[in-house]
Amino acid sequence: MANVAKKVSWSSKDDEARPGESTPLLNGSPTASQSGEVPRRFSQTNFFRIERLTTVNLDDDTAQDQGGGPSACVSKEILHNEKLLSLNYESLDYDNSENQLFMEEERRISKIGFHVLEIKRWVVCGFIGIFTGLIACFIDIVVEKLADVKYSIIKKNIDKSTEGGGLSISLVLWATMNAGFVMIGSILVAFIEPAAAGSGIPQIKCFLNGVKVPHVVRLKTLVVKVLGVISSVVGGLAVGKEGPMIHSGAVIAAGISQGRSSTLKKDFKIFEYFRRDTEKRDFVSAGAAAGVSAAFGAPVGGVLFSLEEGASFWNQMMTWRIFFASMISTFTLNFVLSVYHGNPGDLSSPGLINFGQFQSEAVQYNWFEIPIFICVGAIGGMLGAVFNRLNYWLTMFRIRYIHRPCLQVIEAMLVGAVTATVSFVMIYAMYAYDCQPIGEDPIKYPLQLFCPDGEYNTMATAFFNTPEKSVRSLFHDSQGTYNPMTLGLFTLSYFFLACWTYGLAVSSGIFIPSLLIGAAWGRLFGLFLSTVSPDSTWADPGKYALMGAAAQLGGIVRMTLSLTVIIVEATGNVTYGLPIMLVLMTAKIVGDFCIEGLYDIHIKLQNVPFLGWEPPAKSHALTARLKVIMLEDCVD
Amino acid sequence: MANVAKKVSWSSKDDEARPGESTPLLNGSPTASQSGEVPRRFSQTNFFRIERLTTVNLDDDTAQDQGGGPSACVSKEILHNEKLLSLNYESLDYDNSENQLFMEEERRISKIGFHVLEIKRWVVCGFIGIFTGLIACFIDIVVEKLADVKYSIIKKNIDKSTEGGGLSISLVLWATMNAGFVMIGSILVAFIEPAAAGSGIPQIKCFLNGVKVPHVVRLKTLVVKVLGVISSVVGGLAVGKEGPMIHSGAVIAAGISQGRSSTLKKDFKIFEYFRRDTEKRDFVSAGAAAGVSAAFGAPVGGVLFSLEEGASFWNQMMTWRIFFASMISTFTLNFVLSVYHGNPGDLSSPGLINFGQFQSEAVQYNWFEIPIFICVGAIGGMLGAVFNRLNYWLTMFRIRYIHRPCLQVIEAMLVGAVTATVSFVMIYAMYAYDCQPIGEDPIKYPLQLFCPDGEYNTMATAFFNTPEKSVRSLFHDSQGTYNPMTLGLFTLSYFFLACWTYGLAVSSGIFIPSLLIGAAWGRLFGLFLSTVSPDSTWADPGKYALMGAAAQLGGIVRMTLSLTVIIVEATGNVTYGLPIMLVLMTAKIVGDFCIEGLYDIHIKLQNVPFLGWEPPAKSHALTARLKVIMLEDCVD
Repeated sequence: MANVAKKVSWSSKDDEARPGESTPLLNGSPTASQSGEVPRRFSQTNFFRIERLTTVNLDDDTAQDQGGGPSACVSKEILHNEKLLSLNYESLDYDNSENQLFMEEERRISKIGFHVLEIKRWVVCGFIGIFTGLIACFIDIVVEKLADVKYSIIKKNIDKSTEGGGLSISLVLWATMNAGFVMIGSILVAFIEPAAAGSGIPQIKCFLNGVKVPHVVRLKTLVVKVLGVISSVVGGLAVGKEGPMIHSGAVIAAGISQGRSSTLKKDFKIFEYFRRDTEKRDFVSAGAAAGVSAAFGAPVGGVLFSLEEGASFWNQMMTWRIFFASMISTFTLNFVLSVYHGNPGDLSSPGLINFGQFQSEAVQYNWFEIPIFICVGAIGGMLGAVFNRLNYWLTMFRIRYIHRPCLQVIEAMLVGAVTATVSFVMIYAMYAYDCQPIGEDPIKYPLQLFCPDGEYNTMATAFFNTPEKSVRSLFHDSQGTYNPMTLGLFTLSYFFLACWTYGLAVSSGIFIPSLLIGAAWGRLFGLFLSTVSPDSTWADPGKYALMGAAAQLGGIVRMTLSLTVIIVEATGNVTYGLPIMLVLMTAKIVGDFCIEGLYDIHIKLQNVPFLGWEPPAKSHALTARLKVIMLEDCVD
Repeated sequence: MANVAKKVSWSSKDDEARPGESTPLLNGSPTASQSGEVPRRFSQTNFFRIERLTTVNLDDDTAQDQGGGPSACVSKEILHNEKLLSLNYESLDYDNSENQLFMEEERRISKIGFHVLEIKRWVVCGFIGIFTGLIACFIDIVVEKLADVKYSIIKKNIDKSTEGGGLSISLVLWATMNAGFVMIGSILVAFIEPAAAGSGIPQIKCFLNGVKVPHVVRLKTLVVKVLGVISSVVGGLAVGKEGPMIHSGAVIAAGISQGRSSTLKKDFKIFEYFRRDTEKRDFVSAGAAAGVSAAFGAPVGGVLFSLEEGASFWNQMMTWRIFFASMISTFTLNFVLSVYHGNPGDLSSPGLINFGQFQSEAVQYNWFEIPIFICVGAIGGMLGAVFNRLNYWLTMFRIRYIHRPCLQVIEAMLVGAVTATVSFVMIYAMYAYDCQPIGEDPIKYPLQLFCPDGEYNTMATAFFNTPEKSVRSLFHDSQGTYNPMTLGLFTLSYFFLACWTYGLAVSSGIFIPSLLIGAAWGRLFGLFLSTVSPDSTWADPGKYALMGAAAQLGGIVRMTLSLTVIIVEATGNVTYGLPIMLVLMTAKIVGDFCIEGLYDIHIKLQNVPFLGWEPPAKSHALTARLKVIMLEDCVD
């Protein structure tokens, strides 16, 4: 159980730092030319050779790497091989190891003791829910406040510059503010706790799969994650705060259930019975579910997420506890936010993200729309595959060349500044084409720019806003709000920005950017349909924005069951269940045909010994054949 | 795999019938005094003694039975012992048995063959969904039509008799019609296929647990079940059509996936690969989920039901297929019903039962209501325990004395007639107290009776209606609709009627009666709250009717996770998630303190070797101790 101080490879941070800590990490180690490193390299190569003899997922391009022999390995500065499993990870116990000590401990517990333990488990799950909810509130409120300050300052400056000239100063201001916020988050992640990078879902997936990823459930990681996600969302990056919520929930769960903290070096001497891999893993499942629940207001979705993405086991009592943690988490979030928003006790509001309820009269769909939905799913699957392929190449590039923390910080700041610039250019370019009157339900930061008085720039609704609000606007705004060109340009630019952003050394989720991209092209698709069939009531752009969002997200992350439920719960309407499911399934099938899901890609790139759900097809036959071979060997 | 013609004991039908079929069934065999039976008795007693040596769930009252020795067993006419496992059941294979034949078969399948198999699995699940949906439509439409005819005739007669006198003739007419319908269903069940009795959920639970319950997934069972449930619902019994839907789905699944029918003695030579226990069990899970989905419009609830109640395994792909079957089932039902109701293509309507959507402004709840909800849950748990205890005694009585099919039919007819009489007396007794003006949204059969013109008798809304509509009325009607006395009397009478009805030799579900009882006392509770705090907006009787319904159902069947989701989906609103979950959990905890859930009681009473989720607490310690004992034995 010793959680030894191994280096984490999640952030693709190299291991130049501390001396005396010899880690077998392969990814892009720049110190290969140091003499002390050579023996290790050799041993790796030997390890590599042993690996070759087994049949674990090796194919041709590993053979190329091996071609040069040991000398080639040393001479090539970077030896990266994503087909190899890293030695960096230990496995968690799948079940209690029933040794003498364990037996004696069990025997000492009375029957009442077991009931007390069961009650303690429920209590722990309750606390997991409460603290996850509180963290979600904290992130939500701080992001709202800071974004408010940022957008107010920039809007004031732009409004002033529009009249007096000097818009380039506004651009510089915007870009600098973004880069500044991003820098804070990036420094925290790159220098203090690399395990807090990204959404955290791949790490949690690995943890629940039985792989002990170092540092992933530490308190330090949680603190960096929370501060990091605040700064990257406020910094205007194409990121969401939902993925990190799931990771945060998992860390909280691990912390509470173990009753001690490695970061604080403090042992609270509580819940000592739960200090075993099996119990810890169960609680981490609950924490992840509570995170989903807080993020999307989707307790059932949270449970299914834990089961679909994580758990390699199934147990009724555990599932109830997970559900309990999820429910408490949503409840806490709702309660605190209702107090914060001044209507205490109104617990009907959903999670962090609120897609807005689709009203019953608008949500009807016809049977002939089913094939159209399937088309949307296929588009989502293809776009998702493109996204994943691009991000795969980018991540490979990052592993090879951008492994120093300072480079990572600079890249993150660059992305922040470029995001601001692209947004600004888009808004500026569209001022002549897409102005809308400020209606009865005004947006929060209506940028007038060069629009006539009483009107605002629509592109700014999408770009000059937190992504959650943009998604909601795309889902619910009336048919004429966005013009097709705005949507097309927005999709294109946001697609590349999001793709560039994922994998940076910042805390960032991929859910909201995916939804936003999908909602944009889905709405475009809906507008196209309503042009084709102008008199129809069914071609509602908002509905197709929802389908597009589901398709894009499904095409990128490839979940189906839990995602269907999450989206259904987040929209507060069960009517769209079947269409969303069909869309997600099509997206998955089409996407899987091209490339794996984004999380799986990142897991593979970190060489985690991840065990899939299904044995390879024909494995039965293989066993049979092996048995025959072995028998023959014996006979010979 | 030979599905030998063993007798089914589910209907508590005795095994006097066919000769040459020696079954080791213990329950109330009246032929014990025949000479040929004695050796079997003896062997049973031996079996019984062997059982005593093991530690499987035996307690004191078995010792009493044994006290008399073998002679006492023979002399006592009825030897019923619910602590003993029946020899009547075989087990299903948990996994494929990897023998030579299996290996050879697997080896012959190419890689493409495996993909084709996978596609076939999806196709089968699609068909399961379609046919389950169609069966649900059929039941729904036929029940609606027949109930329409019945209530129209009776209403006409009552209206006539109210003016001209002779209401007793109306009563006789009503009772006769009920008894007639019930007779048809009961004869089908008692004489043709006893496996179709009851809701079918305990049987499916056993099947998914790995116990091969004879006849339970036969086509004949399906036909009897469908006709039986139609006649018992139309016959006015306190039953629902939802439980049987779940059983129907399971039968359809077994039939389609195996590509043959034992009833028709026909082999369609399709899907021969799926003719193994593991595959069949997976498909039956899907069928049960599709049934839930069709019954409640709750596809996610269906999946969770399958997992919570049935599956002793968990597999991602299988879960997706189950979800797919559920979705298709709801879709088919909605599509056919939308065509039937004249607005084709409107797919937004939910399943068979529609609780009606709770509107957002009405559904708000405050944090201080949480303890009240928990109280409601506790009341539900207690009432559920009382219900289960009464039904347990009744079932014991039935097993001992009402085991001949003709007696069963007579009992069922009696219950039908008594139900009509009680309803009539209630309606008649309340005519002076509870009349309501017929508003803008009139009920379907407004019985005026002695009410003034333009008004109707409220008790008749609850009694003179199909139970589904009564539930909806209790959930949604405005505050003044029901007066407390009506609700109290209705609760009391329906409680005992439902308790008497469950376990009759008819196809019947317990979901709707439970919901109805709970909704009635929940509404009463809500009215009480609004009297205590007259100015409050939160004390909405409809909301408390929903909580009461959940509590009562939870107290009887003791599901939590799936039931929460089913109720949330059926009400179309996720806001009540947490309260419903708390209510169900409280009901389960309180109920479990007193007696087991109704399904578990009936499973135990049939002596099924059912394997629970959790090993008994301290089993680890037991293992440890046993090991020590064994070691000591060795040393000695």
